[in-house]
Amino acid sequence: MRRDEISKVILPESEIPKQWYNVIADMPNKPAPYHNPQTLKLIEPDDMKAIFPDEIIRQEMTAERYIDIPDEVREMYRQFRPSPLYRARGLEKQLGTTARIYYKYEGTNATGSHKLNTAIPQAYYNKIAGIKRLSTETGAGQWGSAISLASSQFGLECSVYMVNVSYQQKPYRRSFMKTFGASVVASPSNLTNCGRSMLERDPECSGSLGIAISEAVEDAATHEDTNYALGSVLNHVCLHQTIIGIEAKKQMEILDEYPDVVFACCGGGSNFSGITFPFLQDKFKGQKLRAVAVEPTACPTLTKGIFAYDYGDTVKVAPITKMYTLGHDYIPAGIHAGGLRYHGDSAIVSQLYNDKLIEAKAYGQKAVFEAAITFARTEGIVPAPESAHAIRAAIDEAVLAREAGEEKVILFCLSGHGYFDFAAYENYFSGKLDDVEYSPDSNTSLNNLPPIE
Amino acid sequence: MRRDEISKVILPESEIPKQWYNVIADMPNKPAPYHNPQTLKLIEPDDMKAIFPDEIIRQEMTAERYIDIPDEVREMYRQFRPSPLYRARGLEKQLGTTARIYYKYEGTNATGSHKLNTAIPQAYYNKIAGIKRLSTETGAGQWGSAISLASSQFGLECSVYMVNVSYQQKPYRRSFMKTFGASVVASPSNLTNCGRSMLERDPECSGSLGIAISEAVEDAATHEDTNYALGSVLNHVCLHQTIIGIEAKKQMEILDEYPDVVFACCGGGSNFSGITFPFLQDKFKGQKLRAVAVEPTACPTLTKGIFAYDYGDTVKVAPITKMYTLGHDYIPAGIHAGGLRYHGDSAIVSQLYNDKLIEAKAYGQKAVFEAAITFARTEGIVPAPESAHAIRAAIDEAVLAREAGEEKVILFCLSGHGYFDFAAYENYFSGKLDDVEYSPDSNTSLNNLPPIE
Repeated sequence: MRRDEISKVILPESEIPKQWYNVIADMPNKPAPYHNPQTLKLIEPDDMKAIFPDEIIRQEMTAERYIDIPDEVREMYRQFRPSPLYRARGLEKQLGTTARIYYKYEGTNATGSHKLNTAIPQAYYNKIAGIKRLSTETGAGQWGSAISLASSQFGLECSVYMVNVSYQQKPYRRSFMKTFGASVVASPSNLTNCGRSMLERDPECSGSLGIAISEAVEDAATHEDTNYALGSVLNHVCLHQTIIGIEAKKQMEILDEYPDVVFACCGGGSNFSGITFPFLQDKFKGQKLRAVAVEPTACPTLTKGIFAYDYGDTVKVAPITKMYTLGHDYIPAGIHAGGLRYHGDSAIVSQLYNDKLIEAKAYGQKAVFEAAITFARTEGIVPAPESAHAIRAAIDEAVLAREAGEEKVILFCLSGHGYFDFAAYENYFSGKLDDVEYSPDSNTSLNNLPPIE
Repeated sequence: MRRDEISKVILPESEIPKQWYNVIADMPNKPAPYHNPQTLKLIEPDDMKAIFPDEIIRQEMTAERYIDIPDEVREMYRQFRPSPLYRARGLEKQLGTTARIYYKYEGTNATGSHKLNTAIPQAYYNKIAGIKRLSTETGAGQWGSAISLASSQFGLECSVYMVNVSYQQKPYRRSFMKTFGASVVASPSNLTNCGRSMLERDPECSGSLGIAISEAVEDAATHEDTNYALGSVLNHVCLHQTIIGIEAKKQMEILDEYPDVVFACCGGGSNFSGITFPFLQDKFKGQKLRAVAVEPTACPTLTKGIFAYDYGDTVKVAPITKMYTLGHDYIPAGIHAGGLRYHGDSAIVSQLYNDKLIEAKAYGQKAVFEAAITFARTEGIVPAPESAHAIRAAIDEAVLAREAGEEKVILFCLSGHGYFDFAAYENYFSGKLDDVEYSPDSNTSLNNLPPIE
């Protein structure tokens, strides 16, 4: 195919990958194992049986290089995969850059983001394990939407604990999940001990992701037929997302291109993992490549956090992980990229960053929205605020290339669209968005790390 | 390609059609010519020069069979075309039908509906005619979004008169248009004589599509550098949408399939025209085929209206058209499929219906939302309420096929997604939606038709 004649590369269904890539197999230093938040001891597979099916636990702990994608999962992937890879011709022209910019677009599925890539296998493995119902938490709503859809496709019930403030502010996300048959409750709810105790203290409690996780885990742990599902951070979630990068590599190959640099936004890390890990596999073998995680200055986990063992959630029910963290008590300022507000990061991504195999960069939200609007007007897609972090970085890189007169090849992951984020865009237009800078000096959360060396 | 192994057919960019198909060339009876709403005389091309560029006027009036699609337009189409054709495997399974159901999905572009197919050429023809700004109206917001995006891609300014009640109720649609640089005002506005006179009478006026059209046309007619753009009804709009059906025919061919019946929702008629006209071309040559327009019982233009000359809008600035109409004063009940509330219909579609070359069917909104939810849960796409009319009809046809044990091939156009329509879904879930039946006896609008035979 002549590179300059195409605007997008779409692979046939037969090219949907048959295996996910497990980066752990090739990492020079493996991610540290999880610890039990109650006992502080190393977590054993059995510790997770109350909330995860066996195959998910196996995938969480294995160092096997390739994991087969079940036929039933590939069948569901066919509805929206392979996803398109675009050449950003409009954006390039606008920037007058000598770089060639490509983006892999994960917003073409019904839930509008990459989250469905892992929601489908998670629902599948629970289904074949005989589970009847999934419980999960959701903040912004992307993950809740994805797991609701996946559950409906496999005939599972789905209970979503939605952070109360989002439940009130985002009625459409709520309706979206209901359309797929999920039951959605505002968290804290009176369905769990944790929720009831929070409501006793404060009947108007606005909730938090920490509380919602706690309720969802309690629900799963106390119901025989129910398991828990998580949308980022964990190894198996990052694994499932590698389908993004595997496809992107094939698409770039068709164009006879290889990226000099790959950008992806990074919250818990699953979207970043998805696009970059299959390219990092080449880097481990000597390929020249930069992989850059882009995060908000309001929650700069990699760029300003410390590499240490910390609890995965505020109420200490999730595993203790060695990761870059701002402290499990840290509450980021209310920025609009809700998907990038996690206090920590994937153990794998953190280890890679510590080993200087990947880079990180942080932006304030004004610069991010400015990039989002440039992108929308030149490429015709309204990006999710999360994804716009990667756009900002790609634009800056393309401008540098122009200034240096270099023919750089830039790839980024457009992890989702912004159809559900117009309240944030409206705030930007009306000048209500401020940049928030993290101040390590005033962050006392780092004083409460668990006592593990 | 083995038919049973695929879930979707995606054509390469090289297969984006090079010509639109003008059904007028092959119609046994041509649509009646337009009349001037002031003089009641036949409209001449020159009558339209104040608001349309020459090429649009030519396309509006020609009987040429094929119209070349400009390279610049095909270049823009490449961002989202060819659009996918899906086999509705999940839906078929749920219905246990012997029919094979296919749908052409026009919701994968940034504005989420088929409207962009005509917005792009309209912006292009205005751009090369030296026009600097487009004015238009929008109700639900789909058309306004599409023309905003297309304008931004061709460097045109865009002014959207948005029906006041929608402007208040749909802030996200407003933000969407602003993201693409359009200026959006609530109509009636103080920018036009028409708007000011309405506001004088009632400062709180909630507006109507009729008033908004009037303002947009006045804006175009009174500014040298400004033209008007319309999103449905007119011949050139229906022409541009035929790209949908031309692609769908090729995609069905790859599967060695030909539809027994094609369904599309029908408001002004452009989406229906788009999917069906290229198939009707075969029907004119003897191919067996049913083409069915699906409309709401609250605005049943084809199924309950009369075939007569009528004004195109309430305030009588748009051309008089011979069409099926409920009367230009008719105000349909507030149903949620805002795109299907037009009192009339495309002249072409009306003539075809009068000649019994196409069929029509009407549904109440409860049955439509029920179908929408069945579709979402089995196919993983939340449909726009407009598009769900076609889904309802396709489901009913598939059930009939099952009962008769027939191997029927059903095709419908999924004209857009429902990401912006969750308020309507929420009303359905909470039991607030009622079916509205049209009553011809109480419709006095039909007494005010223009005196043309």
